[in-house]
Amino acid sequence: MRFAKGHGTGNDFVVLPDVDGALDLTPELVARLCDRRRGIGGDGVLRVVRAAKHPDGARYAADAEWFMDYWNSDGSLAEMCGNGSRVFVRFLLAEGLRVGDRIATRAGLKAVRVSGDEIAVDMGPPVVGGRSEAVVGGHAYEGRIVSMGNPHLVCDVDDLDALDLTTAPHHDAAVFPRGVNVEFVAPVAPGHVRMRVHERGSGETLSCGTGACAVAAVTGAATVDVPGGRLTVAAGQGACWLAGPAVLVATGEIR
Amino acid sequence: MRFAKGHGTGNDFVVLPDVDGALDLTPELVARLCDRRRGIGGDGVLRVVRAAKHPDGARYAADAEWFMDYWNSDGSLAEMCGNGSRVFVRFLLAEGLRVGDRIATRAGLKAVRVSGDEIAVDMGPPVVGGRSEAVVGGHAYEGRIVSMGNPHLVCDVDDLDALDLTTAPHHDAAVFPRGVNVEFVAPVAPGHVRMRVHERGSGETLSCGTGACAVAAVTGAATVDVPGGRLTVAAGQGACWLAGPAVLVATGEIR
Repeated sequence: MRFAKGHGTGNDFVVLPDVDGALDLTPELVARLCDRRRGIGGDGVLRVVRAAKHPDGARYAADAEWFMDYWNSDGSLAEMCGNGSRVFVRFLLAEGLRVGDRIATRAGLKAVRVSGDEIAVDMGPPVVGGRSEAVVGGHAYEGRIVSMGNPHLVCDVDDLDALDLTTAPHHDAAVFPRGVNVEFVAPVAPGHVRMRVHERGSGETLSCGTGACAVAAVTGAATVDVPGGRLTVAAGQGACWLAGPAVLVATGEIR
Repeated sequence: MRFAKGHGTGNDFVVLPDVDGALDLTPELVARLCDRRRGIGGDGVLRVVRAAKHPDGARYAADAEWFMDYWNSDGSLAEMCGNGSRVFVRFLLAEGLRVGDRIATRAGLKAVRVSGDEIAVDMGPPVVGGRSEAVVGGHAYEGRIVSMGNPHLVCDVDDLDALDLTTAPHHDAAVFPRGVNVEFVAPVAPGHVRMRVHERGSGETLSCGTGACAVAAVTGAATVDVPGGRLTVAAGQGACWLAGPAVLVATGEIR
């Protein structure tokens, strides 16, 4: 089985080219591939299938050539992944495949743009809501609720580096009954912030594409530094473009 | 750059074939390769070099064809790694290279044996010393001191699964001035134990070859289950054979 490994600002993926959808991908195989010690290792699997050849992609085949069949590292299916979609496009480019201006995902068609080393994807408009709070180490941080399809809470913090995110911030279960991704933000310069993120189900991660969009929506910043690198966000007119590097590290064969 | 990824009972390695020693391997490159999100990911790098072609291996060239140039994931050099040497031999076999009965390492010549799926390496004799204790969660565990070249403390425990090893067990710094690997052991059956290990500098790991030898030396067990699988230890007559599976997961090219 051919594979590639790549990452976008530290979110990493096992890419499986399967243009004709012939591969019998199972939750068990995905979990084994993503095992960091006994497999390849990754935050998820990106299967590259022609939209026409995948049951969830066929309806988009007139508008997009490729379907991103995304799986979480635990073997569950996911609708969409911002950094994953950028690595997906990087792989298509590296293989000399025609990207087009949209890719198909379980969350629908997603517009993509390539500009030099940067790959951008339109994550759709953030919906900014009311206020809630997250508690870390006994301290309550006020935050703004944002939906990017998934729920976020964006909190200002004075000393970003001092935060201990080894355990999940406590959140209001009445506001976030299915959990929440919590972003902590500190200013760097006008239009430029730094963030750390605790993702529900994953813990602190090096990057979170929807989280960067949520942070940009609340702070107005266009440059969002995450622990794994730098993302650029351009929101407006019903879109939210997430841009940044996407890198292929290796290609090979799985035994 | 060609590579393979493999593991022995969950200790995983990036294998770099470099038979003529032409590769300019640096600490920075090793650390980047072992980065689990932005590289390939591994507990260390195993460079495969002809003994005659490596400055640290040339003195052994009459007795061993291959030198295991082992690096820790942080880019530091290491003398020897039990599970690593087993994966090293697996790679030689997979490439159709002549293994012989010894490999050269920075810790000298190491005898190896292949038997079906299992690969064994003579780790040298354990030296069992006196007693000390490790404190976990306020509870003191009595243990036996063992040297396998590196220091170990082997402690009996009633409820192995309940132990919280997310932080390092407290040890007696007067006895172990440079830290210690602590093994916690529970019986399974006569001659068969289960262990968990906290490795100095690494935290809890899925497996530890020298740790399994230390446990076998103290308990007399020949079968040692680690979280990453099953190891078999045969000690005596100045030797300590560590045997178990060693698997190659993938091969490919690093970009």
